[in-house]
Amino acid sequence: MSLTNRLGGLAFGGDYNPEQWDEPVWKEDDELMRRAKVNLATVGVFSWALLEPAEGVFDFAWLDAHLDRLHANGVSANLATPTASPPPWFTFAHPDALPVTAEGVRLVHGSRDTYCTAAPAYRTAARRIASALAERYGDHPGLALWHVHNEYTTLCWCDHVAEAFRAWLCERYLSLDAVNEAWGTAFWSQHYTAWEQILPPRATQWHKNPGQALDFRRFWSDEVLAAYREQRDAIRAHSDRPVTTNLMVPGYQNLDLWQFGREVDVVAIDHYPIAPGIDAAADTAFGGDRARSFGAGRPWLLMEQGTNTVYVGDRILPKEPGDILRHSLAHIAHGSDGALFFQWRQSKAGAEQWHSAMVPHAGPDSRIHREVTELGEILGRLGELAGSTVRADVAVLHDSDSWWAMTGDGSPSADLNYHSTLGRVHRVLWDAGVTTDFAHPEDDLHGYRFVLAPALFVLSDAGAANLRRYVEAGGTLLVQYATGVVDERLHARLGGYPTAELRQALGIRVEEHRPLARDERIPLSDGTFASVWSESVRLDGAEAVATYTTGMLADSPAVTRHGRAWYVSTRLDDAAYAALVARLLADADVTPDLPDLPPGVECVTRHAPDGRHWRFVLNHTTEPVRLPEAAHDLVTATTVRELPPGGCAVLR
Amino acid sequence: MSLTNRLGGLAFGGDYNPEQWDEPVWKEDDELMRRAKVNLATVGVFSWALLEPAEGVFDFAWLDAHLDRLHANGVSANLATPTASPPPWFTFAHPDALPVTAEGVRLVHGSRDTYCTAAPAYRTAARRIASALAERYGDHPGLALWHVHNEYTTLCWCDHVAEAFRAWLCERYLSLDAVNEAWGTAFWSQHYTAWEQILPPRATQWHKNPGQALDFRRFWSDEVLAAYREQRDAIRAHSDRPVTTNLMVPGYQNLDLWQFGREVDVVAIDHYPIAPGIDAAADTAFGGDRARSFGAGRPWLLMEQGTNTVYVGDRILPKEPGDILRHSLAHIAHGSDGALFFQWRQSKAGAEQWHSAMVPHAGPDSRIHREVTELGEILGRLGELAGSTVRADVAVLHDSDSWWAMTGDGSPSADLNYHSTLGRVHRVLWDAGVTTDFAHPEDDLHGYRFVLAPALFVLSDAGAANLRRYVEAGGTLLVQYATGVVDERLHARLGGYPTAELRQALGIRVEEHRPLARDERIPLSDGTFASVWSESVRLDGAEAVATYTTGMLADSPAVTRHGRAWYVSTRLDDAAYAALVARLLADADVTPDLPDLPPGVECVTRHAPDGRHWRFVLNHTTEPVRLPEAAHDLVTATTVRELPPGGCAVLR
Amino acid sequence: MSLTNRLGGLAFGGDYNPEQWDEPVWKEDDELMRRAKVNLATVGVFSWALLEPAEGVFDFAWLDAHLDRLHANGVSANLATPTASPPPWFTFAHPDALPVTAEGVRLVHGSRDTYCTAAPAYRTAARRIASALAERYGDHPGLALWHVHNEYTTLCWCDHVAEAFRAWLCERYLSLDAVNEAWGTAFWSQHYTAWEQILPPRATQWHKNPGQALDFRRFWSDEVLAAYREQRDAIRAHSDRPVTTNLMVPGYQNLDLWQFGREVDVVAIDHYPIAPGIDAAADTAFGGDRARSFGAGRPWLLMEQGTNTVYVGDRILPKEPGDILRHSLAHIAHGSDGALFFQWRQSKAGAEQWHSAMVPHAGPDSRIHREVTELGEILGRLGELAGSTVRADVAVLHDSDSWWAMTGDGSPSADLNYHSTLGRVHRVLWDAGVTTDFAHPEDDLHGYRFVLAPALFVLSDAGAANLRRYVEAGGTLLVQYATGVVDERLHARLGGYPTAELRQALGIRVEEHRPLARDERIPLSDGTFASVWSESVRLDGAEAVATYTTGMLADSPAVTRHGRAWYVSTRLDDAAYAALVARLLADADVTPDLPDLPPGVECVTRHAPDGRHWRFVLNHTTEPVRLPEAAHDLVTATTVRELPPGGCAVLR
Repeated sequence: MSLTNRLGGLAFGGDYNPEQWDEPVWKEDDELMRRAKVNLATVGVFSWALLEPAEGVFDFAWLDAHLDRLHANGVSANLATPTASPPPWFTFAHPDALPVTAEGVRLVHGSRDTYCTAAPAYRTAARRIASALAERYGDHPGLALWHVHNEYTTLCWCDHVAEAFRAWLCERYLSLDAVNEAWGTAFWSQHYTAWEQILPPRATQWHKNPGQALDFRRFWSDEVLAAYREQRDAIRAHSDRPVTTNLMVPGYQNLDLWQFGREVDVVAIDHYPIAPGIDAAADTAFGGDRARSFGAGRPWLLMEQGTNTVYVGDRILPKEPGDILRHSLAHIAHGSDGALFFQWRQSKAGAEQWHSAMVPHAGPDSRIHREVTELGEILGRLGELAGSTVRADVAVLHDSDSWWAMTGDGSPSADLNYHSTLGRVHRVLWDAGVTTDFAHPEDDLHGYRFVLAPALFVLSDAGAANLRRYVEAGGTLLVQYATGVVDERLHARLGGYPTAELRQALGIRVEEHRPLARDERIPLSDGTFASVWSESVRLDGAEAVATYTTGMLADSPAVTRHGRAWYVSTRLDDAAYAALVARLLADADVTPDLPDLPPGVECVTRHAPDGRHWRFVLNHTTEPVRLPEAAHDLVTATTVRELPPGGCAVLR
Repeated sequence: MSLTNRLGGLAFGGDYNPEQWDEPVWKEDDELMRRAKVNLATVGVFSWALLEPAEGVFDFAWLDAHLDRLHANGVSANLATPTASPPPWFTFAHPDALPVTAEGVRLVHGSRDTYCTAAPAYRTAARRIASALAERYGDHPGLALWHVHNEYTTLCWCDHVAEAFRAWLCERYLSLDAVNEAWGTAFWSQHYTAWEQILPPRATQWHKNPGQALDFRRFWSDEVLAAYREQRDAIRAHSDRPVTTNLMVPGYQNLDLWQFGREVDVVAIDHYPIAPGIDAAADTAFGGDRARSFGAGRPWLLMEQGTNTVYVGDRILPKEPGDILRHSLAHIAHGSDGALFFQWRQSKAGAEQWHSAMVPHAGPDSRIHREVTELGEILGRLGELAGSTVRADVAVLHDSDSWWAMTGDGSPSADLNYHSTLGRVHRVLWDAGVTTDFAHPEDDLHGYRFVLAPALFVLSDAGAANLRRYVEAGGTLLVQYATGVVDERLHARLGGYPTAELRQALGIRVEEHRPLARDERIPLSDGTFASVWSESVRLDGAEAVATYTTGMLADSPAVTRHGRAWYVSTRLDDAAYAALVARLLADADVTPDLPDLPPGVECVTRHAPDGRHWRFVLNHTTEPVRLPEAAHDLVTATTVRELPPGGCAVLR
Repeated sequence: MSLTNRLGGLAFGGDYNPEQWDEPVWKEDDELMRRAKVNLATVGVFSWALLEPAEGVFDFAWLDAHLDRLHANGVSANLATPTASPPPWFTFAHPDALPVTAEGVRLVHGSRDTYCTAAPAYRTAARRIASALAERYGDHPGLALWHVHNEYTTLCWCDHVAEAFRAWLCERYLSLDAVNEAWGTAFWSQHYTAWEQILPPRATQWHKNPGQALDFRRFWSDEVLAAYREQRDAIRAHSDRPVTTNLMVPGYQNLDLWQFGREVDVVAIDHYPIAPGIDAAADTAFGGDRARSFGAGRPWLLMEQGTNTVYVGDRILPKEPGDILRHSLAHIAHGSDGALFFQWRQSKAGAEQWHSAMVPHAGPDSRIHREVTELGEILGRLGELAGSTVRADVAVLHDSDSWWAMTGDGSPSADLNYHSTLGRVHRVLWDAGVTTDFAHPEDDLHGYRFVLAPALFVLSDAGAANLRRYVEAGGTLLVQYATGVVDERLHARLGGYPTAELRQALGIRVEEHRPLARDERIPLSDGTFASVWSESVRLDGAEAVATYTTGMLADSPAVTRHGRAWYVSTRLDDAAYAALVARLLADADVTPDLPDLPPGVECVTRHAPDGRHWRFVLNHTTEPVRLPEAAHDLVTATTVRELPPGGCAVLR
């Protein structure tokens, strides 16, 4: 039974940590959850110390009571394995399972995530607690979902990691010769003559070997995935409920989320916007579109958001009234089958006591809790769309290898930021009112009318051939600078960039990369400006759509077109880039779900298999917006013709 | 016998390190000190290596000679225990007594302060040398003061520290359950099941536990205080002279100076301004007012200042002519019974060879030395005011817990800087011509007409009740944002901030903290602007004096008044803040000692028990200033009616 | 036989790493090298792992083949010892030979330079491989030059280093008392009572001892020189070919290059400009003039440059068309007997895959390779000037001690940057069209008409006497602020700065250093502005040429003149500084080789012993420039009267 079937609609609730409170508070929780129509509570994320107070000794009584209480109150459990935060007794008994930095600093407990994923003692302990929980609660009537671990994000460079890395390399490459060849160890005399000489990329004198660095990233993602699978399989031995883990989709990435998407029963993400206002809305769409894509289009689940939390580096900014509803609906519009928060009740102590919650320090008599209760009411009216999906005509290619490769040292330019480049591409499409999928370069792309390949630094032969086939089949393709420069072993493409099949598809040959100075802007022939990067492009079938106008590149192509295959060799200014994308959208006959919405008003459609569909219209602006026609709105349960500033509608 | 009785007036002199020089220089020193009327020399601060050339082997002959020579020359000794700088032989023999960083780096000798205060070997050695010095010199006729250690400022995270931290926790909390409850270890699964699992807050994965971090700060201050007491008590066993240590009052704080103030016979501080010009004068007043307050109003002692040294991060700026006198008099005005310098003669080698001195590298034929000699002459004329005190009608609450709590990670905003907030409050009062005390939140406040509570993040129930009683007794109170948010265990106040007794006193309830973005400024209803922080304030008896005008807080109170209890929920712009404070000063009937002085002209009064008083008038500006009436000035030994730019007068 | 005699002209080529490629590529290399007239290939720099695949087991077969192939193709070998990059097996077998940071982090292999120069196992291994190479190839007919190691630049703080440092100190100071006296250990109680207490300046609590820090720098340079000598001597036992090492002349300096200049048969440097455009040209001249000076005026060799590489911190900027030729000729103009590149063929993998090469990734059909081939053609026409030298009338004093002393902590101002100060002096002379030597302060200076002493913080008595004699003999001397402040033990000069002999020569006495605030600019009497630093200068025979106008220094001398000895006590603004230098050049009767060239057009002359000379005229501007008269140009092999933008001529 699917999660939403079990819940009878969209999921609504959040992390619930009753162990931080006492009975009077639990009673109030029951009352408040009922009033707010909460139907799912994430339990046990940080409960290892209570569940297993000493190694192998379990205490489930308290959790029994809470799960029964929740169930009796109509709230299902999203039961977590508590492995993201081993208790002090664990690290005290197994100091070798503590994480070690690249500089050799062994971190201690006193925070969370103080474990090495590759440490045998940790893996054993994680399987044991996951198994014990599954055995006890696997068929609990209130159990709706398994939540393995929490936000897998840590790295480690310890000796256990070294050993596991070597085993991974051995399995991938079969021979040491193949490793030497892949990493180019002939350079800088790095030739390995025995497996045990290979180390993780720990602190060293100058640049690290880029092949080693990339393979370490790949290995780590696989190692973490193996740890996840072990817990998942231990759970499945005792339970038929769906299993997932809450992935992070921020500006860093230690995991290949494409792979995780294939191993979870439902993709779940945590999302905290990195800026307030309209940027938060764009970032929400960016996160949601990725979550949906990692799950191959299936409905996914927003596992954590904040009621009043915008993390901007050195402070926590608040949200505005209405954001709780509008951000939640934005996630659902992009395919989430619910909206959960971290956490139900704001902690009075501990490291995250200033992280907002559904019941703030001020208590239920508060703006925040009132908005939460209103959200529960509205989500209750939207249950019919659970299970419906989102369709896109446009795909942006996305790949962990390129991200990892670009963040190594020795990169030709610090401005080659993979994540911000990806976010910019998504933003320009979002601004154009178009719903966007992400796709892996080797995915079947024929269902898309328009495909964009930004900063796809690493591109395999198979990926390049895939892109060529896509173009040959009539697809519109926009390739951006610094794409296809190296193969999957990070070996540079020789004879001109990018790789040969892509050169053919694009009708060009890049002779030189010419990175630009920080803040340098150079004029193009169409009156716009370029920055960050430039390339010496030779035409080989393509035509120049815009040229550089100064220096050695004067009159040399900046933007080229070869049939429906376009190449942009530099970072265009915002307006020029938006205009180019708009032109290609038009060429590819891609249109917004609702035409003529003003900027900042988002429309996304969810489709049911039976042909029903729901248009989410979200007014992220401070002006009212008039809809093309009056329609029934599930949010207000009325017919609406206009949305107020910040207003939302779900039109059936 | 008090220090000034023994000296027959104000103390004047500085650190004297004859071991860096030879006999011809000593002869010149004698002559120059006599001419400059030096009466106190700090000796032995860095002499451990010479006094105890091998473990337990003492060589006092050279120090005997210098103390006798100084005494014969009319210069008393401020004899230091040299424990701030263990010699190489010590750390070589006791490597476990070297300090270790939070990342596990064991620091080596080759600088100073390379010891761990909690290391048994270090404590034993420190007691031994202190005891030996006291035994030998305890009743030396030239001895006027004991100077334990030097600038206790270091931290350590080693295993000795871990053990001492656990012992401290055990004594404070009695049970591990109480520690778990206080630190909120239910969050992030940090529950401790054995004392030995507890560590200092060493390098860990993410945020540290804030309760652990705060208790570590408190523990460390207590540990250092215990080390000080051990030396003090060892000295008192052999000597009846007063004992102190030179505290640092800069922008960082590893010690709870309220506690130190109670354990020293006279509060002594080192003071180096952090900016040139008028800011140096304000910073001097800030330091002096704190020194006086830590000593409960007793006269204190400026143990170190520089003749030509303004430390501004990456360089040493010089002072201007006249600063030597004016800065010295400013300290005395705020309660110091003397003016000492680091150091007498500028070192020709070593780490501080560019630190200025009373005899610079250039020698006695120099501007600096001439100003020093002039200062000695003037201080000789001010001896009569030794022992007199300073009175204040205004108190600013000050508390180490709030400082420490705000500097931990996980703080809601990096702009919540305790020290700069405190300095700003002091500065606005200083600009208003008002003399300010600092007080602990639980001190008796009834003697003050006006009390300010800025950034008092941590506030105990007792402190809150104290403030309520103060208001009820008719006192004027100004509470600022981010005050009373947590109790002394760092547990958030629930049901609305601040804590209940303070909410009652202020007639408000704060529902949400809403930190502002970096450099964000928002308009208030009175035409002024706010920054850094805002709050959603609900009136519960108070009236709104100014409101926010934009966003969710539009029309919501920014500044409130409830009788004489005021609340400011944001950081007001400078002018608005000064105007508010001026209004409250007027309401509380607080006036400057001399009215109508222009900005930058400071007036502070010292009072003798017999009713005599001395008005210090210090013209920190570049314009002449006319006094309200002509008066006898002890500085010039004339009657003055006007002060030149930079001029000083002490009017009896 | 000299290198150029053996080559029959100027050296042309680059690093050649055939082990990264396969046979078809080698065949193409042969063809391309012939076409490009390459005559020298640097081989084996990173080949340790292949040459000695296991400890003591050598495999020379592959290198035999490559050397024979090169020789057959007319390309001589610059054979490197591969000791800059020990293979993984070495560090795996000798972990104690890995470098350790000051914080105690032991770096691992996986980059290059992962060794400690002082580790016995490393030194043994380095001698062994050098000796084996020399024995096998010492008289190979294709061998033209030995290239010991590569870019000695690393530091280490391990226990081997500690032991070697103590041995060095013992040899230098003979007694521990002398060390204590030199380092001023009386300050901060740092007195050493046993040699084994002395450590390298590892991480410590506050400032390090500056004497210890400086001596550590000196020791390290000597230690590295000893390591170089060991290899050189091992080679000389088997080979009569010249031996060198490629020195780095960038903005950091771990070696005393004056000493290295005396130990190599030909000075060789690597040079990568740190900025594009005209700054690259000035930086090239700066590097070239230093290289020539370190070799006492002998022709030197540009061992590495990039075809398309400008390193600017966080990115690699490209060069402009023509730079390959113009930069190469600029180096040759300043005395290089050739132009080599790193590297021949751009690596397809490894840490430097984005470092440009003579054959780029794009292949021979590329702008870069065409420019390389053109350069080979032109250098072939310039063979006649091999061995000729460059003459200068102006010397800038340069000294490692001052550099090292200024970069320690505790410096009076972060703006006292030795290297940038030196570069600025050179640039103002370069802009004036004057060729500049560098000289050590104790060198014989009588051959120079004008000597400049900028930022010569450390100055021995001998150096000061040398400068005084130079002035007395009629030389023109310009001394700048912060010069002669300490002696070679870093002991401050007492009685006024600088040291007495220099005070006499300059007719001044500096009473106080008065560092300026960041970005502070203060007006001088001549209408110009000063920054960074100021001094209180008293005239003692000199006259004031310009005075300060504000603050305590108002009317106090800023620039002074005493006969031909000038002193500048502050950093003058660019135009004022250029004007002062121009005036002194005129006074000293120093003129450019070609008068009246516009700014950015460089002229340097190489002289043969037989009186022939060649004028290099390099137009670094974007405007054409007319020559004073038509002349035969070896670059174009025509008579030229005008140079186009970016054009070059070598006029015989």
